[in-house]
Amino acid sequence: MENSSGSRVTCLILRILTFVFLFISFFILITTSQTVQSFKLNFNDYHAFRYMLATIIIGIVFNLLQIAFTLFNIVKNGNSTILFDFFGDKFLSYLLATGTAAGFGLSVDLKKIDESDLFGSFFDKAYAASTLLLFAFFCAAAVSILSSFALSNRS
Amino acid sequence: MENSSGSRVTCLILRILTFVFLFISFFILITTSQTVQSFKLNFNDYHAFRYMLATIIIGIVFNLLQIAFTLFNIVKNGNSTILFDFFGDKFLSYLLATGTAAGFGLSVDLKKIDESDLFGSFFDKAYAASTLLLFAFFCAAAVSILSSFALSNRS
Repeated sequence: MENSSGSRVTCLILRILTFVFLFISFFILITTSQTVQSFKLNFNDYHAFRYMLATIIIGIVFNLLQIAFTLFNIVKNGNSTILFDFFGDKFLSYLLATGTAAGFGLSVDLKKIDESDLFGSFFDKAYAASTLLLFAFFCAAAVSILSSFALSNRS
Repeated sequence: MENSSGSRVTCLILRILTFVFLFISFFILITTSQTVQSFKLNFNDYHAFRYMLATIIIGIVFNLLQIAFTLFNIVKNGNSTILFDFFGDKFLSYLLATGTAAGFGLSVDLKKIDESDLFGSFFDKAYAASTLLLFAFFCAAAVSILSSFALSNRS
């Protein structure tokens, strides 16, 4: 169990990184709209982007909860949330993976329809938000691997 | 380690289920095309559906490899592929999650554009393929949870 405190700090750093990526992605996504010649594109018109926003919001709330638990465990030197972390990290990383894929899936094919590239800035923002969500997913997946290994170091 | 052989059989059944869902999803997806008044919609025109097809094909190949390893382990009563299973199942379940999300993300918003529901059968097939891929993802996620627990029963 020597490396347990080190891996906890790694988890905490990765969770904070996840939070930062989610937070920036949130603000980029909610400002994703563009008006060209009285025709307005808004992220809110598309189910996939709305789903993406939902995964980001749920991700942020869940992530903050987990950061609180991790801090609590580091301070108390406790180990009580290993199973919660394991399932929570799995859930969070799947959630972020689907949000990223839905965002990219729609952006790529919508952009192709917009052949004259009128809505360039709209798609740039949509891509930026999806990419940041992808980074958040990478961090969450790494935490999920660590929390699976923590299961096997238990007791 | 008493329940190890039982959990291996469960894994095998879930992997075979994953394979079945992927296989049906593959055939539905590649037949997803519809021609209405000389305008043809084909799944191949959309990056998101092509990505979905790629995840299905990689998923099938990877899944068959894992079934072979699981059978080998059951016959030899060996335990050598626990880490391979752990990372492999994580990879496969993330892959299927993103494929499902990309498929649904595009289908939902494309269907909304098609207001007069001309391409109903195209979208029905796209939804069917995505839903089967979702079921395959559920099985893969369950296997991934089992193979994480197998890590902690090791040695």
